[in-house]
Amino acid sequence: MKIAIIGTGAVGGYYGALLAKAGNDVHFLLHSDYEHVRQHGLKIESPIGNFDLPQVNAYKSVHDMPQCELVIVATKSTTNHLKAELLPPLCQEANKVLVLQNGIGLEKTFQELVPNSQIFGGLCFLCSNKIGPGHIRHLDYGTIKLGHYIGEKAAGLSKELQEINTVLSKAKISTELSEDINKARWEKLVWNAAFNGTCTVLNQTTDKLAQFAKTRSLLFNIMSEVIEAAQACGHNIDKLFADHMMALTDNMAAYNPSMKLDREASRPLEVKAIYWNAINEAAENHFDMKLCRALAQQLDFIDQTNKSI
Amino acid sequence: MKIAIIGTGAVGGYYGALLAKAGNDVHFLLHSDYEHVRQHGLKIESPIGNFDLPQVNAYKSVHDMPQCELVIVATKSTTNHLKAELLPPLCQEANKVLVLQNGIGLEKTFQELVPNSQIFGGLCFLCSNKIGPGHIRHLDYGTIKLGHYIGEKAAGLSKELQEINTVLSKAKISTELSEDINKARWEKLVWNAAFNGTCTVLNQTTDKLAQFAKTRSLLFNIMSEVIEAAQACGHNIDKLFADHMMALTDNMAAYNPSMKLDREASRPLEVKAIYWNAINEAAENHFDMKLCRALAQQLDFIDQTNKSI
Repeated sequence: MKIAIIGTGAVGGYYGALLAKAGNDVHFLLHSDYEHVRQHGLKIESPIGNFDLPQVNAYKSVHDMPQCELVIVATKSTTNHLKAELLPPLCQEANKVLVLQNGIGLEKTFQELVPNSQIFGGLCFLCSNKIGPGHIRHLDYGTIKLGHYIGEKAAGLSKELQEINTVLSKAKISTELSEDINKARWEKLVWNAAFNGTCTVLNQTTDKLAQFAKTRSLLFNIMSEVIEAAQACGHNIDKLFADHMMALTDNMAAYNPSMKLDREASRPLEVKAIYWNAINEAAENHFDMKLCRALAQQLDFIDQTNKSI
Repeated sequence: MKIAIIGTGAVGGYYGALLAKAGNDVHFLLHSDYEHVRQHGLKIESPIGNFDLPQVNAYKSVHDMPQCELVIVATKSTTNHLKAELLPPLCQEANKVLVLQNGIGLEKTFQELVPNSQIFGGLCFLCSNKIGPGHIRHLDYGTIKLGHYIGEKAAGLSKELQEINTVLSKAKISTELSEDINKARWEKLVWNAAFNGTCTVLNQTTDKLAQFAKTRSLLFNIMSEVIEAAQACGHNIDKLFADHMMALTDNMAAYNPSMKLDREASRPLEVKAIYWNAINEAAENHFDMKLCRALAQQLDFIDQTNKSI
């Protein structure tokens, strides 16, 4: 399959390299790493096997890239204001766009940008870092939960979704299929909204906050608020899902959520995709996400301070 | 008047020294500064005039102190668990106790400890620091808002309140009288709960948080929540009081609230008196202070981390 990767970092670099290794015709868009990758290709370290791709199709402009059947968006959502320039030139033909980003409401944004393309969402349960130009270190996990986006209702398991699933599976990428990507995004948000922001504001790993009674209660209250918001938005997530997520966290090792790492690296924080999009969708459905709003307001302050350093 | 000062720091040291200078018979309880103050007395720097008290009545145990007509409690509320030992020996006779602490529900606690004493509350609008043993630097302001505590209802301007007022006024301490100390404490809490905690969590001065739109909205929401909680507890504070407090903050210079300074000095944070006492009183009146609870939970985490350094 002819595949474009927008954002060749810890996520796009890793999955794109696996897809290329499996024989797909993969085209990588790069920014600061362009020269390095054009000359030296990609280098992947992984517990399931290291590998190099010494020659890859590297581009620094979307206008030089071919039309592809599948366009995988793997940039941070903080750069989504640039997508109005990046995406349409790649989607002149009716193709498929797979959005591998964190948060809520992302497929809708992309569908509006490229109305003739089919939009798919992917939730990555992946632990990987870019440790140098074109050099990705995969640490653990890697499953993508995949769903077809056809508006706000459940899209089911479409033929097109299964085609993408086949391509990913053949590249040894573990997948799960979701009949309702919108609900799946809210489910992932339950943990994300609680732990990403709180770990970032308090500058602590997940285990410390889950162990201390007061912050455990705070995290639980935020998770419960997200579940109520999801219900208000028409997604049937059980109240007990918060207990399940807390138990899961108790069994995890100390973890630095992505937003905390972004803060430490002075990168922009994904407050809009993870918080404001959810708060606004809930508000449209007459539900007030008080705790998430307060946290998002704190995070926006940290974000603007962090960026201006 | 024979006066005991419990806690000879930035607050108790300053007011106690003014009371002694005016000719009252003042007895100071000290802890770490005892030896220094016993030998060298107190030293006050102030824009309204520096002065030394080379000899003061200094004590390291309440059991050595005489019975006094007026006992002024000027320790941080974080040490209130010690008051069950400190206060009863000083209040064997039916005397007056004036509580100069920040927060909610303090008079009630003290009334339970010394049921035969009359309890008064004082809200200090004072900017002062202890800069060395027995050495207080008064920076600005200094008015005490005084009220008589007789249970949860407004006590009015009692004869005893006016007696205390006379003693303070003669010592050139600026005062305001409140007919309802419980309401006055909730009014002070409106600003305090918003700015103390948020400045502490985000490690910023008041001006920066009031200027940034998102945190301005957060602070406003917290102030509004405190006003609603106060109303639920029977105190008639107008909604517009939040606008008034915000305008006041806009006209203030950059300010470090006491809790932020406590964090920086690794002192215990007054989370219980400023947040939990209010949250619990509101809960008893069927009002849920969601924003204050979330902030208090964050602050409790910071507090335990800070203390264990």
